[in-house]
Amino acid sequence: MAELARAFAPATVGNVAVGFDILGFAVKEIGDIVSVKKISEPQNIKIEKITGASGIPTDPKKNTATVGLIRLAKDFNLPFGFSVSIEKGIPLSSGMGGSAASAVAAVVAANALLPKPLDETALFSYALDGESLASGSMHGDNLAPALLGGLVLVQSVKPFEFVQIPVPKNIICVLVHPHIEIETRTARKILKKDVSLKEHVHQSSLLAGFISGCFLNDKAVISRSLKDHLIEPQRSSLIPGFTEAQSAALNSGAFGCSISGAGPTVFAWTDSRSSGEKIADNMKRAFQKNGTEKVDSWISPIRTEGAALI
Amino acid sequence: MAELARAFAPATVGNVAVGFDILGFAVKEIGDIVSVKKISEPQNIKIEKITGASGIPTDPKKNTATVGLIRLAKDFNLPFGFSVSIEKGIPLSSGMGGSAASAVAAVVAANALLPKPLDETALFSYALDGESLASGSMHGDNLAPALLGGLVLVQSVKPFEFVQIPVPKNIICVLVHPHIEIETRTARKILKKDVSLKEHVHQSSLLAGFISGCFLNDKAVISRSLKDHLIEPQRSSLIPGFTEAQSAALNSGAFGCSISGAGPTVFAWTDSRSSGEKIADNMKRAFQKNGTEKVDSWISPIRTEGAALI
Repeated sequence: MAELARAFAPATVGNVAVGFDILGFAVKEIGDIVSVKKISEPQNIKIEKITGASGIPTDPKKNTATVGLIRLAKDFNLPFGFSVSIEKGIPLSSGMGGSAASAVAAVVAANALLPKPLDETALFSYALDGESLASGSMHGDNLAPALLGGLVLVQSVKPFEFVQIPVPKNIICVLVHPHIEIETRTARKILKKDVSLKEHVHQSSLLAGFISGCFLNDKAVISRSLKDHLIEPQRSSLIPGFTEAQSAALNSGAFGCSISGAGPTVFAWTDSRSSGEKIADNMKRAFQKNGTEKVDSWISPIRTEGAALI
Repeated sequence: MAELARAFAPATVGNVAVGFDILGFAVKEIGDIVSVKKISEPQNIKIEKITGASGIPTDPKKNTATVGLIRLAKDFNLPFGFSVSIEKGIPLSSGMGGSAASAVAAVVAANALLPKPLDETALFSYALDGESLASGSMHGDNLAPALLGGLVLVQSVKPFEFVQIPVPKNIICVLVHPHIEIETRTARKILKKDVSLKEHVHQSSLLAGFISGCFLNDKAVISRSLKDHLIEPQRSSLIPGFTEAQSAALNSGAFGCSISGAGPTVFAWTDSRSSGEKIADNMKRAFQKNGTEKVDSWISPIRTEGAALI
């Protein structure tokens, strides 16, 4: 049996404008890597090293990558422990599913060291511990695509019930990250507890249209549906320049543009790399005009493969 | 040019548990027929005869079949009028889309008498006048499937934006109509104006799952999704025996069972006629045990064709 395993899990865009807490997709170019090494102390989980970001908790009970491994080691009464090294490729508190990616990469790596590997449902459940720790909420819209790849609808986290939605052809995702700090917990707190029935009906029709557009590979239906009238108006004020960046994206050929997860990263969908570059440039400029100097961007296809050993 | 036309429009199930106001499907066995005859008085719309039901307004301005024709005749400055006969096949106030069927059949018949026939969008718009008159609300979940057939997602009524959702193979719909009178307006009035964000997220995940299940032709996904946690709990008290009838349906092999439109008719989905018969019998018995003697039922495939001239 292996003594050491290393896994990659991709960055993900949660909510996807239409599916608050239930819809997410994985991107190709960015992700976290977690290495897990067997150590002799039974059920001892320790963090050896964290690179690529600072300020992440080094207490295994408080770290999103390791908290699930603590329960896993106990549940299976493992006669060994894990020493964990985390390489953050996803910027912290960016809204790109960093905590989900670390949690997923850790369980996927640890799984390779178990006598009997676990199935997706079990892996999801242990990774969920990390995500809940980070966000204070049980949602799977980042976890599921980080684990499985593609565009995933999460109907339930306990039990894990999901549907893989077909990714439309040639979709290119633009991610633009203005360096403003937003804590996921804060972004959740500001949300109204209630939605009017009218808003519910309207937002539902956008979600159902978007899902249909993906199955039909119909860009007209996707474009008219990929809109968030519910959460985005409440959160956009946390991101100076959001409205201008969104307009810039839509005027540069994006099918849709909204906040990635809790933000501040903003995502847009288009259908070519050249259009993606134009969108990224114009969005960046909009954020900079509105006072955020440091802005990063990525242009990436959807990653259809899930987290994987490397 | 023809002087007389006659059209059939099917009964429809609105809401379909998961898509309040935005989702509906047509059934094969029941519908309304409207005959329209040209008369010489320009833009005069009159009602000649109504059969199959009593108590329907005979004033053309107050009748769901004719109100759209009044606007149509004006909009096109028609040099003739229409005399309209309505054959109600759909029981009144049953929740089976009777007003939508009459409105659609009337515009489809009248359309055949126009110098230049209108497209679907225009027909929908005139039929919408009738539906709004009947329900006091602008929703297209009965109109769209009555006009187009199949299972239809209505994203917007003005402009008319819709998606035809594939009907899963071998679906049989059971309709059970306990003879209790519920006015659509009353059924709308009792609804809470707000939905909690949590309920919104949960009901959205059911809608998205149901749509996905239909595209995937996956009965397991359809079964776990075809549920209404939002509207049904508020309306079921208007239908004595609903809970018992629903349990009877689910225990007899239904994939899902909920209120058809505003009720009192209850629909269930299954995949064979024999299962449909068992479900219908057990639901009928449940309603009768709960005090409603007169209960009708139908077992019907989904009608994939729209309204049609006959």
